[in-house]
Amino acid sequence: MRFQIIGFTLGILLAILGVLQLIPALVDRASDHENARMFLFSAVVCVFFGMGMILAFRCERLHLSMRETFLLTTLSWLGLCVFGAVPLYLSDLGLSFTDAFFESTSGITTTGSTVLSGLDQVSHGVLLWRSMLQWVGGIGIIAFAILLLPFLRVGGMQLFKTEASDRSDKVMSRGSSIVFSLMVVYGGITALCTILYHMFGMSGFEAINHAMTTVSTGGYSTHDASFGYFNSRILEWISIVFMVLGAVPFILFVKLFYKGRFAFFEDEQFKVFMLLLLVFTAGLSLWLWQNSAYSIGQSVTMSAFHIVSIITTTGFTTTDYTLWGALPVMFFFFLTYLGACAGSTSGGVKIIRVVVTAKAIARQIKALIYPRAVFVLRYQGKAMDYPVIMSIFGFLGLYVVANVFLTIALTLLGLDFTTAVSGAATALANVGPGVGSVIGPAGNFASLPDLAKWLLCFGMLLGRLEVLTIMVLFSRQYWTN
Amino acid sequence: MRFQIIGFTLGILLAILGVLQLIPALVDRASDHENARMFLFSAVVCVFFGMGMILAFRCERLHLSMRETFLLTTLSWLGLCVFGAVPLYLSDLGLSFTDAFFESTSGITTTGSTVLSGLDQVSHGVLLWRSMLQWVGGIGIIAFAILLLPFLRVGGMQLFKTEASDRSDKVMSRGSSIVFSLMVVYGGITALCTILYHMFGMSGFEAINHAMTTVSTGGYSTHDASFGYFNSRILEWISIVFMVLGAVPFILFVKLFYKGRFAFFEDEQFKVFMLLLLVFTAGLSLWLWQNSAYSIGQSVTMSAFHIVSIITTTGFTTTDYTLWGALPVMFFFFLTYLGACAGSTSGGVKIIRVVVTAKAIARQIKALIYPRAVFVLRYQGKAMDYPVIMSIFGFLGLYVVANVFLTIALTLLGLDFTTAVSGAATALANVGPGVGSVIGPAGNFASLPDLAKWLLCFGMLLGRLEVLTIMVLFSRQYWTN
Repeated sequence: MRFQIIGFTLGILLAILGVLQLIPALVDRASDHENARMFLFSAVVCVFFGMGMILAFRCERLHLSMRETFLLTTLSWLGLCVFGAVPLYLSDLGLSFTDAFFESTSGITTTGSTVLSGLDQVSHGVLLWRSMLQWVGGIGIIAFAILLLPFLRVGGMQLFKTEASDRSDKVMSRGSSIVFSLMVVYGGITALCTILYHMFGMSGFEAINHAMTTVSTGGYSTHDASFGYFNSRILEWISIVFMVLGAVPFILFVKLFYKGRFAFFEDEQFKVFMLLLLVFTAGLSLWLWQNSAYSIGQSVTMSAFHIVSIITTTGFTTTDYTLWGALPVMFFFFLTYLGACAGSTSGGVKIIRVVVTAKAIARQIKALIYPRAVFVLRYQGKAMDYPVIMSIFGFLGLYVVANVFLTIALTLLGLDFTTAVSGAATALANVGPGVGSVIGPAGNFASLPDLAKWLLCFGMLLGRLEVLTIMVLFSRQYWTN
Repeated sequence: MRFQIIGFTLGILLAILGVLQLIPALVDRASDHENARMFLFSAVVCVFFGMGMILAFRCERLHLSMRETFLLTTLSWLGLCVFGAVPLYLSDLGLSFTDAFFESTSGITTTGSTVLSGLDQVSHGVLLWRSMLQWVGGIGIIAFAILLLPFLRVGGMQLFKTEASDRSDKVMSRGSSIVFSLMVVYGGITALCTILYHMFGMSGFEAINHAMTTVSTGGYSTHDASFGYFNSRILEWISIVFMVLGAVPFILFVKLFYKGRFAFFEDEQFKVFMLLLLVFTAGLSLWLWQNSAYSIGQSVTMSAFHIVSIITTTGFTTTDYTLWGALPVMFFFFLTYLGACAGSTSGGVKIIRVVVTAKAIARQIKALIYPRAVFVLRYQGKAMDYPVIMSIFGFLGLYVVANVFLTIALTLLGLDFTTAVSGAATALANVGPGVGSVIGPAGNFASLPDLAKWLLCFGMLLGRLEVLTIMVLFSRQYWTN
């Protein structure tokens, strides 16, 4: 284990995070808000730490081994969460460090759970910083999913190995140019979203903030009422489209813009994702139309917005859907786990693993009927070998175990049944709102005990880094190898 | 598909069920209760139907194909549930057929959820019939698990193929003699339990009823207060021992009594089962001791009794443990799914599949650290081949899907979050009590809507027959083959 290279890379990340803090500093300076000085101070601290680490650990070659990559990834996300919390801690919000760390972690992991209320009174710099954390977390996770996960072979992600490296379908020749093209695509989509939001009624500041938290499927808003503040059906549909774009495998955009190939409908994840969105929205719209005072048009918008918001793990709301009745609550609860496509900014279990599980079930039923036949599971037309399938099931098993332990631990800290169950789910899946009066869409995480907040932060990081990336660090073999 | 052979076998089962009803008829006759005539009438109906089917479909050879076995198994359990409900429907309880069918299904599947209250006033014949349904359901499921499931290769049960057939470790030469020895063991254990219950305070009638529902891990009681009625620590410990015996792979008893081989501690399921019981009981005892007015002794008894009752899927209670606080509720909720050993009378996911999942997780973590190594999953020291592992994961996936659909469907019928979630869990796992004020340990299933009761019956049968046995009948390939 070469800690030097890990320290060097962390230093670069910290320095970048510090430089980014100059943006909210300028914003608060423009409105003469006292938070400006604090952002500047925090920026200096971050850059100072970052540069110190760069100088102390500087090295020439950056090639990482797989074992080093696991540690670096976990420490990078943790480091961003800690240093992202500094300006929130120092700001005029009067947050405890626990609350600041929770808000920062919820940002970086694009979860969107918040401990803040009275957002409309918070300084623009702080609001922008929250949105920026999600935006940076979003591009970070895309790069991680496309460049590192396939090689780390975490949770079946080796299925996507070819997409970024195979010669027969080569997107880019080198990792760094893929990162660049991803950033261009990500930035372009965000810019387009900002323009549309602004065109249809948001202020410039609102537009840029919501665009960043829409495309990153994070879900932070500049208003306590979240998207409900705008009360605009057209803004909601723009948001629906861009949440979906943020939840699609980004490699498809790179193929489209850099190779001119429209490969969306060749992609199994994308097709299943679209199908699920259609079926779920149709079903819930009908139910809502029958069981509420909404018109059919309102029902469709309400259903589509919240289904997309939960399945993409964004977490925007326009109304407290838990008041619709027990059925939507239960439906959204299970939807929390699902998640959208691997290789996007969304969290949850992800469509790819659901597809493989569904195929395994179908295969098992067929195997009962034709006992002597041999069945092959295919993804994108290619046979999946057993180690890939096993790694998907290992992932799912660990996901369930992590969920059970997290839920029981939250209960041990005094949370009630519904809050514990849905809190663990929403943290692990990086969605945002839970179920119930405490952490539901109308609630807020502020009242939870500090230890519960730390546990939820751990859950968010676990979910964000696909559980195994972190859990591997807890195994004896990792350190004795 | 030879429906003749299926009808013939069903006829035999019905006739036996009819003959068995003569026992409660005699019991109620002895106390001059009006239900005696009704039991006699129901017995005649069952025997009449049964004999009719035997005569109509009589055939010489009983060798079944695998496809026929799936249908026969499902129809057998369904038939027993329907005809087991007849005397309950006709009795002086004034039950609707839905309630009678629910009670009968909950009996045959050894679930133990009840719609009855005021059990202390119910005629002895009816109480005995409920216990007999569970006892018959218990031996039925053991025979099914040991003789049929390994050959049907449902949910990884092919792992146990060798135990009943392999020459190197042959227990019995032929299926029918295994069934006979299983019945002797099962009857013997029940008799011993009856004697001990009677010796330590139960009346003869209470003893035989509770022995039948203990060893079958069913959980019906002759009192509304369930085991709490007796308020006897020694009876509780006797019950703990016999619930555990009912939840152990029965092939181990056959080995012990027919081959004189004590193989319990060579069995991986048994060892993990014991370990879990110890760890869980120790943990909950400590917690309870710290967080309640119970003494350490009371805490241990309370913890052991309820953990064993839930993990063996019996469902006896001595107190409303949901009043202990949120932690035990959550803990018992997750425990509901676990279940004890495959090849016993217990339900749930079962230890064997939990063990394989845990090994798959450990293997996946190791595979991340040693990317080029090949890892083999072993059970009982033997390598498991991939089709076995796949069939376990296919089972688990289907179990989750069935659980989600059942929960959402229950919510659609108006059940609240907690009742729907725990109702689906307790039905699928064949445990008995749920969580919450409606169907919790102090509650009762009577107030649920009729459709919810039918859904729960479907869930109980699904869980009892390892999900796949029934779901295979819903596939197109099964019928077009």
